[in-house]
Amino acid sequence: MIPARAWAAPSATAPLAPWSFERRDVGANDVRIDIRYCGVCHSDLHFARSEWGEAPYPAVPGHEIVGHVAAVGSSVSDLKVGDIVGVGCLVDSCRTCPSCAANQENYCDVGSTGTYMGVEKETGRPTYGGYSNTIVVDRHFVLRIPEGVDLSTTAPLLCAGITTYSPLRHWNCAPGMRVGVVGLGGLGHMAVKLAKAMGAEVTMFTTSPSKTADAARLGATRVVISKDEDAMTAAANSLDLILDTVAAPHNLDPFLNTLYRDGTLVTLGAPAEPHPQHHPFSLIMRRRAIAGSLIGGIAETQEMLDFCAEHKIGADVEVVKMADINTAWERMLRSDVKYRFVIDMSTI
Amino acid sequence: MIPARAWAAPSATAPLAPWSFERRDVGANDVRIDIRYCGVCHSDLHFARSEWGEAPYPAVPGHEIVGHVAAVGSSVSDLKVGDIVGVGCLVDSCRTCPSCAANQENYCDVGSTGTYMGVEKETGRPTYGGYSNTIVVDRHFVLRIPEGVDLSTTAPLLCAGITTYSPLRHWNCAPGMRVGVVGLGGLGHMAVKLAKAMGAEVTMFTTSPSKTADAARLGATRVVISKDEDAMTAAANSLDLILDTVAAPHNLDPFLNTLYRDGTLVTLGAPAEPHPQHHPFSLIMRRRAIAGSLIGGIAETQEMLDFCAEHKIGADVEVVKMADINTAWERMLRSDVKYRFVIDMSTI
Repeated sequence: MIPARAWAAPSATAPLAPWSFERRDVGANDVRIDIRYCGVCHSDLHFARSEWGEAPYPAVPGHEIVGHVAAVGSSVSDLKVGDIVGVGCLVDSCRTCPSCAANQENYCDVGSTGTYMGVEKETGRPTYGGYSNTIVVDRHFVLRIPEGVDLSTTAPLLCAGITTYSPLRHWNCAPGMRVGVVGLGGLGHMAVKLAKAMGAEVTMFTTSPSKTADAARLGATRVVISKDEDAMTAAANSLDLILDTVAAPHNLDPFLNTLYRDGTLVTLGAPAEPHPQHHPFSLIMRRRAIAGSLIGGIAETQEMLDFCAEHKIGADVEVVKMADINTAWERMLRSDVKYRFVIDMSTI
Repeated sequence: MIPARAWAAPSATAPLAPWSFERRDVGANDVRIDIRYCGVCHSDLHFARSEWGEAPYPAVPGHEIVGHVAAVGSSVSDLKVGDIVGVGCLVDSCRTCPSCAANQENYCDVGSTGTYMGVEKETGRPTYGGYSNTIVVDRHFVLRIPEGVDLSTTAPLLCAGITTYSPLRHWNCAPGMRVGVVGLGGLGHMAVKLAKAMGAEVTMFTTSPSKTADAARLGATRVVISKDEDAMTAAANSLDLILDTVAAPHNLDPFLNTLYRDGTLVTLGAPAEPHPQHHPFSLIMRRRAIAGSLIGGIAETQEMLDFCAEHKIGADVEVVKMADINTAWERMLRSDVKYRFVIDMSTI
C-alpha cells in the first residue's frame, strides 16, 4: 500500500482537516499520479456534507485532478513517469455494457465508479478523491494533458469543462447555433467559452446585472437578466439550445419559452430537490424538450482537453492553498468566486 | 354565405344543442366539404367547456373530419366535386414563417388557426368545427383520403392518428425500436397500432389489468401495469421512446426510469394543470429527455393517411348519432369507449 495524505471531512458537519491514509498498490493497468492541482466543484461539498446520500467518512472530495505520472503498472505502455495527466469524475466502469462499449462510461449501465462517492473494486474500500497528494487510477480513466497548457486553469476542465462540452457536442453545437447559458458560475463560464469556440451565438441568462460585462468578456453576445419578465418575453423563441447550469430549483418555463421549435433545455445542475413543475404547453406547443446530461465519456473528455488546448481555453480560476479550503467552500456557497477555486496541491 | 347546421355548446356548462349558422362563401382557394363523419376528441370537450381558456359561444367542436367535396374555388385544380377528403386540427397558418416553410404548420411561428378555437382570417369570426353538416376550408389544409378506406375509422386519424404518428416519425421509430405507450385510449390505441406498423416492439403501460388482452390484440408485445411498482422497476432502462397519451397530471419519474440512455418521453396529452415535478436525476443519469409534440404538419398528415391506408390501419370506433353526442361525451369522460366515438353526420 502507498502512504498518502489528504484533506478529508470527518463528518457531514465538521470542516475538512488533514488525514493520512493509504492508496492501493499500483496494479498492472494502473497509473500513480502525484497531484499538482485539484479544482473545487460544488459536488465536492454536496458529497462531503452527505447531501446526495450518506458519505463514508473520512470523506475525501475532488475530481478535477491534474498532475504527473509517478509510476505505471507493467501493462501500461503508453504513459511514462513524468507525463502530465488528468483524472476527472470517474475512475472505473464495467467496460463491457453497451454504454461503455459506446465510449460512454459516464452512463455505464451497471454503474460507473466515481473518483469519490464510489467503491474501489480492487479493495472494496471507498474511493478517495483529489484533495490529496497522490492517487492510483486505472490507465483507461487517465487523460493526457496536452503540452504547454496552464495546469491550474486546466484542472477544472476535468469536470466543469466536460460537463458543458459533452451536451454542446451531443446537441450538435455548430457555427450559427443560438445557445443560451443559464447561470454564470463554474459550469456556466465554461459553457460560454466552449459554445463560443464552437461558433455559436451565445446568450447569457443571469440574475445579476453586475455580471453583464463579464459575460461579454467570456464571449456572450447577449445578456438577458432572467428576473426581468419583459426581457425574458422579448427573448421568446430565439434559441436552439440552452445549458442550464443552476443547481438550485427554479422555474424552467421562462427559459423554455426562449427556445425556438425543436429546442432543448439541458439541465446540468443536480439540485437535491426537483425544479418546480413546468407547464406541459411549454413543451408541446413547439416540440421543445427538457433533457439532462452527466459529465462525459473518457474519449470525449480527451477530445475536450485537446479542443481546449487548441482554442487556448482554460477555466478562470483562483488558486488557493490546501489549508484555505474551508474558507473557499464558504465563498463558493456565496458564489464569491470567478469562477473556480483550484487547490495548489504543493501546499498540502 | 352558406347556410350550415351544427351542434354547438351554448355555454361552458350547457349540453350541446342544434344550431344554425353560416359558413363563408367558397373563395378562389377554398373547398367546401359535406361532412360524412366527425371523430370525437377529448379536446372538443376541453374547448367547449372553456377549460383551455374562454371559448366563443355558441362553440362548435370537431376536428376529425371526413367527407366529400361539394364545391371548389376557381384556383383549386387538384380536387373536384365528389372527391373524398379530410380536415384535421388546422384550417390556416401564416404560410411564410420558417416553420410553415418547413411544412410544420402545426408549429407556425405566428400561430396557426385551429379548426375550432381559432379566428377565421377571411371573416374575423370564430372558426366552427366539424360537428356540422358542411365546412369551407382553404385547399392547403384539405387532405386526400386514399380510395377504399372505411371513412368512419379514418376520421380519428386526422387528430389521434397524426398526433401519434408525427412523434414516432420525428424520433425515428423503426424496426427494433423499443416504444412504450402510456394510456390505452383514443391516442394510445393509435400509438400502439402505428408503432407496431413501423416495426417497433411495443410496451403498453396501463393502470387497468383488464386492458391487457386488448393491448396485445392491438400489437403490444408487453403490458406493464403502471400502478405495480415492482413491474415498473423491472422495466427499468428497457425502452428507447415513450409516447405518453395521458392528459391527467401524473408522476413522470416511474416512466422516465423505464427509458434507456438517450431515451425520450414525449408528452402528447395537454392537462390543464402541470404534471408533478420530475426528479432531475431521472434525466441527468442517462441523458434522458421529456419532450412535447403537437399534432403534425399538413404534408405529414397526408403521409400518415397514406401509411394507414397501406397498412390497413384505422381507429377502433363506435359510431354514434349526432343527437347522442352529450351521452358520448359523458362516456368519454369515464373512458367508456373503445377507443373513439365518431359521429355519423348524416344523422344531424
